[in-house]
Amino acid sequence: MLFLDQTYLFTPGPTPIPNRVNAAMARPMIGHRSPDFSALLEDVATRLKPVFGTKHPVYTLTSSGTSALEAAVVNTVAEGEHAVVVVAGSFGDRLATIAENYGVAVHRLNIEWGKSCSPEELEDFLKGLSGTPIKAVFATFNETSTGVLNPVRALGEVVKRLTDALFIVDGVSCVGAVPVDLEKDHIDLLVTSSQKALMLPPGLAFVAFSDEGLRAIEGCKGKRFYLDLNRYIKSYETQKSTPFTPAVSLIAGAQEVCTMIEEEGWDNVIKRHTLLRDMTRAGVQALGLPLLTADADASPTVTSVKPDTLPAPDIQKALKSDFSITIAGGQKKLKGKIFRIGHMGYCTPFDVLKVLSALELTLVTFGQEPKLGAAVKKAEEVWIKHV
Amino acid sequence: MLFLDQTYLFTPGPTPIPNRVNAAMARPMIGHRSPDFSALLEDVATRLKPVFGTKHPVYTLTSSGTSALEAAVVNTVAEGEHAVVVVAGSFGDRLATIAENYGVAVHRLNIEWGKSCSPEELEDFLKGLSGTPIKAVFATFNETSTGVLNPVRALGEVVKRLTDALFIVDGVSCVGAVPVDLEKDHIDLLVTSSQKALMLPPGLAFVAFSDEGLRAIEGCKGKRFYLDLNRYIKSYETQKSTPFTPAVSLIAGAQEVCTMIEEEGWDNVIKRHTLLRDMTRAGVQALGLPLLTADADASPTVTSVKPDTLPAPDIQKALKSDFSITIAGGQKKLKGKIFRIGHMGYCTPFDVLKVLSALELTLVTFGQEPKLGAAVKKAEEVWIKHV
Repeated sequence: MLFLDQTYLFTPGPTPIPNRVNAAMARPMIGHRSPDFSALLEDVATRLKPVFGTKHPVYTLTSSGTSALEAAVVNTVAEGEHAVVVVAGSFGDRLATIAENYGVAVHRLNIEWGKSCSPEELEDFLKGLSGTPIKAVFATFNETSTGVLNPVRALGEVVKRLTDALFIVDGVSCVGAVPVDLEKDHIDLLVTSSQKALMLPPGLAFVAFSDEGLRAIEGCKGKRFYLDLNRYIKSYETQKSTPFTPAVSLIAGAQEVCTMIEEEGWDNVIKRHTLLRDMTRAGVQALGLPLLTADADASPTVTSVKPDTLPAPDIQKALKSDFSITIAGGQKKLKGKIFRIGHMGYCTPFDVLKVLSALELTLVTFGQEPKLGAAVKKAEEVWIKHV
Repeated sequence: MLFLDQTYLFTPGPTPIPNRVNAAMARPMIGHRSPDFSALLEDVATRLKPVFGTKHPVYTLTSSGTSALEAAVVNTVAEGEHAVVVVAGSFGDRLATIAENYGVAVHRLNIEWGKSCSPEELEDFLKGLSGTPIKAVFATFNETSTGVLNPVRALGEVVKRLTDALFIVDGVSCVGAVPVDLEKDHIDLLVTSSQKALMLPPGLAFVAFSDEGLRAIEGCKGKRFYLDLNRYIKSYETQKSTPFTPAVSLIAGAQEVCTMIEEEGWDNVIKRHTLLRDMTRAGVQALGLPLLTADADASPTVTSVKPDTLPAPDIQKALKSDFSITIAGGQKKLKGKIFRIGHMGYCTPFDVLKVLSALELTLVTFGQEPKLGAAVKKAEEVWIKHV
């Protein structure tokens, strides 16, 4: 009642859509075999390069994040070939499951949920597999289910030092919010989807390649059709088009997102997400709520809170019913134990203050000693250093 | 210059988007694991039933038409199994190619492009395969590349009389414009995409099942993950959700489309498309331009014109440059030989008159004897019977 028609979305994807992106998506539909569409696609493929840290065009698939993971698998490893998958949460598990589904010999490097994979752990694991022809090592850049950012550059260095494998990274919940450089990070294939840091609705997946990544998928024997990346590359190279009908309106939205990122400045986008992370963590801790992850592992896009003495799902429900705020709960192993606050994409420091205020108020309704203003104060103390 | 900012899209997909659908898609983003999303998905799955002629929920995939075809293949036939594919144009060819890609033993029933597949031809073909364990027969309902509507009910009757095979229909460019009844038409699986008669942007695929279709996909051994329909069914049944992140905004648009179809009346939607077909064909013929297809085979959603003495691609270009009208050319075998006018989805009789007027004017610029008003007159003579 207090919020008119307003609702506040703080899930780690989907994330809020800027009005100007909605306006771009509502422009008159155009044919996907028209010169207008080719110009649009090329513009997006080119302007996304810095965001993906690649010198090659960024390819667009019409599908969501899981299909981006599946594309990463079926274009690089075939039935019977060996792959290592870092599993540090629900989405690492999904990567491994997809590969297993296609008959890949998967070696899971299991990491405690809530912790990052250290380069030392990966090194030990790969040494233990010495002699096994590893075709690819898969890692989750930002494990959405725990709020952990893995040290991909250090992991990539280990992969390339110890093996001839491809290094393939699921960037779903952080590309668009973190610095990445495929060459320096030793990443051969980086995939993500539209509905996270990129300020778009769900429905697009993006794929970026290193030189070696491009070469590798050409020869892959994995069976695929809609997700055959060679078809996307060929269609782009020959016609600046897509092999199958693309989600035209979402791609028009992506063009507007490119403009927004350029206006803000890509470096500033990255700094903003770091600030949002630090503000959220400082505020949550000011309320005496434990964080799931260590500072060194903390994600710039999603923060997991593990309240010891209060039921996480009830806090999630109260934020929704009392304040029209949607956050996320835990998944699988962490179901019922944590809640997650997304702070990525179209999210400002004021938005973080909003969710912290709501948390302060909610804890009072849960019978806790009032700490009204305490989280906001701590978050503002972080913010003031950047004003 | 004469048209302000207006452009006119007459391709057989994508098709124009109603403003109210754009407005629905621009509503605030919601989380895809929220009760609000479940309510949205169930509403769409239920209200689309009459449009797909099914008693079961209609399932939504986040991907485009080709993935709908791929889903139809990988969920019903596995490597080494036999399938018959009716190939009467570019999209029948794509169905066959997808199945071949997955190692299915494909028997192509080739039909001359521009003609429909008669039940007799299918009967002869199936009799010729007597003894071969055919797992599924695939047919294109409306062959977009030629503008032919295949007699699916008669074909389905043949399939069920002669074989134990599933009958699987690609409804991409006609579902939402033609009557269909899975039981009476003997269709086990009917797939389509959003950007044709359903008045949505590209990015969604829809799948409808018969009882037998539902049973069959459960046991299929084809390898798939993102396109595994069992996952969509289970997720819907247990949580009214999708297994992977759905294109939330497009599904919100689909809900508005359901309202539009109900307001117009489903029977009237079908009648309108028949009228658009008849007006287009009458108008084109009044200009002395030959149609590719016979009246009995004619599609209610797209009309192919095969000008003998004039270059089809030049007519297409002139409509674009002089009148801001986008139509489509021919594909593959028919490239350069035909042009295609789409008249489906958000298309009224006035829109058909618009494209006919532009054709009348264009023929004059091509040095033909002026027939200004002739096509419009003939089209109006068709229309008046329905006023």
